[in-house]
Amino acid sequence: MTDALTTALQYANEHRQDFLAQLIEFGAIPSVSTDPAYKQAVHQAAEWLASQMRSIGIQKVTLYPTPGNPVVYGELLNAGSHIPTALIYGHYDVQPAEPLELWKSGAFEPAVRGENLYGRGVTDMKGQVMAALAAVEACLYAGIIPINLKFIFEGEEEIGSPSLDPFLADHRELLACDFAVNPDSGMIAADLPTITYALRGIAFFELRVYGPDHDLHSGTFGGAVHNPAQALCELIAGMHDAQGKVTLPGFYDSVRPLDPEERAELSRLPMGEDFYLAQTGAPALKGEAGFLPVEQTGARPTLEINGILSGYVGTGTKTVLPAWAMAKISTRLVPDQDPEDVKQQFIAYLKKNAPPTIRWEVIDHHGGKPSISDRHSPAIQALSTAMETVWGRHPLFKREGGSVPVVGLFQRYLNVESVNTGFSLYEDNAHSPNEKLHLPTWYKGIEALIHFFFNLAVR
Amino acid sequence: MTDALTTALQYANEHRQDFLAQLIEFGAIPSVSTDPAYKQAVHQAAEWLASQMRSIGIQKVTLYPTPGNPVVYGELLNAGSHIPTALIYGHYDVQPAEPLELWKSGAFEPAVRGENLYGRGVTDMKGQVMAALAAVEACLYAGIIPINLKFIFEGEEEIGSPSLDPFLADHRELLACDFAVNPDSGMIAADLPTITYALRGIAFFELRVYGPDHDLHSGTFGGAVHNPAQALCELIAGMHDAQGKVTLPGFYDSVRPLDPEERAELSRLPMGEDFYLAQTGAPALKGEAGFLPVEQTGARPTLEINGILSGYVGTGTKTVLPAWAMAKISTRLVPDQDPEDVKQQFIAYLKKNAPPTIRWEVIDHHGGKPSISDRHSPAIQALSTAMETVWGRHPLFKREGGSVPVVGLFQRYLNVESVNTGFSLYEDNAHSPNEKLHLPTWYKGIEALIHFFFNLAVR
Repeated sequence: MTDALTTALQYANEHRQDFLAQLIEFGAIPSVSTDPAYKQAVHQAAEWLASQMRSIGIQKVTLYPTPGNPVVYGELLNAGSHIPTALIYGHYDVQPAEPLELWKSGAFEPAVRGENLYGRGVTDMKGQVMAALAAVEACLYAGIIPINLKFIFEGEEEIGSPSLDPFLADHRELLACDFAVNPDSGMIAADLPTITYALRGIAFFELRVYGPDHDLHSGTFGGAVHNPAQALCELIAGMHDAQGKVTLPGFYDSVRPLDPEERAELSRLPMGEDFYLAQTGAPALKGEAGFLPVEQTGARPTLEINGILSGYVGTGTKTVLPAWAMAKISTRLVPDQDPEDVKQQFIAYLKKNAPPTIRWEVIDHHGGKPSISDRHSPAIQALSTAMETVWGRHPLFKREGGSVPVVGLFQRYLNVESVNTGFSLYEDNAHSPNEKLHLPTWYKGIEALIHFFFNLAVR
Repeated sequence: MTDALTTALQYANEHRQDFLAQLIEFGAIPSVSTDPAYKQAVHQAAEWLASQMRSIGIQKVTLYPTPGNPVVYGELLNAGSHIPTALIYGHYDVQPAEPLELWKSGAFEPAVRGENLYGRGVTDMKGQVMAALAAVEACLYAGIIPINLKFIFEGEEEIGSPSLDPFLADHRELLACDFAVNPDSGMIAADLPTITYALRGIAFFELRVYGPDHDLHSGTFGGAVHNPAQALCELIAGMHDAQGKVTLPGFYDSVRPLDPEERAELSRLPMGEDFYLAQTGAPALKGEAGFLPVEQTGARPTLEINGILSGYVGTGTKTVLPAWAMAKISTRLVPDQDPEDVKQQFIAYLKKNAPPTIRWEVIDHHGGKPSISDRHSPAIQALSTAMETVWGRHPLFKREGGSVPVVGLFQRYLNVESVNTGFSLYEDNAHSPNEKLHLPTWYKGIEALIHFFFNLAVR
């Protein structure tokens, strides 16, 4: 098996340019799932991915239609029934590319500059999907897939995986496995291999506030009615207190407290205030009092304004008192918060605080539960050893502030834990203009996945 | 002279369809001054207006170029030197038509439905300009213009008249007059002729708040930085106190108190809570505590959010922590507030309240001073009598919440007061979709202006 490992690693090393060329092709497909205008491109990305999987030798590759975007399935189950089965997850959809004018090269024209590949989705997570496929390709070339693998790639992760939930419910047998592998996480820095053992959940709302039944002249009527944009600002301003705590009633009731040992470990991560200041460019940090930034972003729940709109926002001025205002608001949740509970808390806050001078409505976009994994499971240990082999140092263990609701879905429907990995970096601008992938780290990641597969088999 | 008056009134009565056809032509020109995309249309409107003035016999019609849009001038000075000279003001530019999808017919395809003409600018104020020209046309047909008239029409009223200020400074002699006539005000209702003796001023700002130096992933970084949209909401929420008072430092210091007699008169206007509820469709009213709606909108200063924008506001969701947020904010001012002072108060508020977690900047769009006129001047009395003749009832005297900065400019450069008139109604949706002009009121307005000209001469 050592010879096969050597062969696989050598193959991966020699085919970096081919892997990159494939990723550039994949990244050029504008598979933006949140915008119906890109529906066809999302399907094209699914077809491209299926074709790529078939071409490297993955079996039973199938596009399963869903009410939304197709689920792409494949398998390689020749390792033997005594060998565990891993379910490799990924998503082929991407975030919108707006604001387009801030991109230095086309969002859907992936371009290499220096050590990085730039393009929407190259790090989140087309590059991660392709790293897994590249590792599989290398193992297949070496003649051995040391463990049994199943693959599931969805096209709705960026909109909350609405079709994946019923798909998992209907395909428990097809997807039966010992654990999932989710390469949608990242590393703290290029020289700091990282394993993520907890993910935040999410509850996403749109709050709409209605005042007058049409836009009014702000001179003629200003002063006698509650401006809906002002009312919305007042409601939003009240959602945090002076300590940076979220004020939704009961919001912290089911938050699992951090134990002193974990707080001590998290405090040793190389992610202090300077790290966050450098990564964000913010003039100063601000978060929930009494917690470190790494806790505020990973182990504590938050409420963020993702967007707000009211009135006239074009060139120049318009003296309008707008009829309505809206905000897109998302909460990030930690164990043991539940998105459905948080929705009720959000509504309770509005019932308590919205004045009679406006009408309001909440649109529930989607939710996903938080998750936390056992850091000492065999699969996580296999990954830890693989990373140590490639980077020459023990990986850091951290919580991730982002949300991967599918981890909770796998717990629920397949009764398995997820190994969260991935080779994106904080500086990669996921969800932002000039999203990028650090290619040296990506190539190491492919090697690490090859080691991971072999470690799993021999354990 | 009575025969001439009768002839003029008869001409006006017989040519209503011609006046309407002219207004439809004028209204079809999309002269939106705030948006550079309509630059050519704004110039076209100026040319159309000059051509119309020449065709009815106004003399020395001239387009004066300015750094912005042209000023259209004309005169009729044959009444004799012992007769007063009135300067008739108007503007040929209009507000933007957005949101276009709410218009029942094209904003720039004026259409008659029932008793109304619908189109952007038909009431504010192309219809008012055309009423004045129709009255002049009728008098000229009758062979007599009973007073001396000068005309000044600008194309930048909706953006704060930036070119008019230096134009007035440079043309004091050309524009010398005894009083100005500004038909940019309106009537309370079709059967309630109204004279406006006070106008609010305006100070218009754009507040921009900057946080992180790029859009962030709201999961990865949410919790450690101050969300600029939230910071903006917090700043806006703090701009009013629980009593509905504006909290800018010193905002009320130079506000002239209302005397009990004026309060008593204003309280008798048919503009109670029911009026404002019906006009606005708001679920409930809200304003500065201790004042009636008619005072809140006319005699007290206000601060309104005209627009707000941050982050992702398109279809679906985007888990972004935005890098910036902006709001368009305008204050309406009453005597003796000064826009420049208010700008300093706005900046002082931000210096005091903006946290160190964000950067901010204020863009000063434009300002205009408030004004208040003597209700017993001969010109206002001439108008009052004219209205009583046409409507059969004494007009109401009111303050107007909107801003007509040119009234202040005429005080400053020409040393004259303005007679504020006009025949638009509250229900006319000025600045809103489905702006309209009530045609029976408009035709009465033309008659009233003919009487007004004759009353001025015989006094």
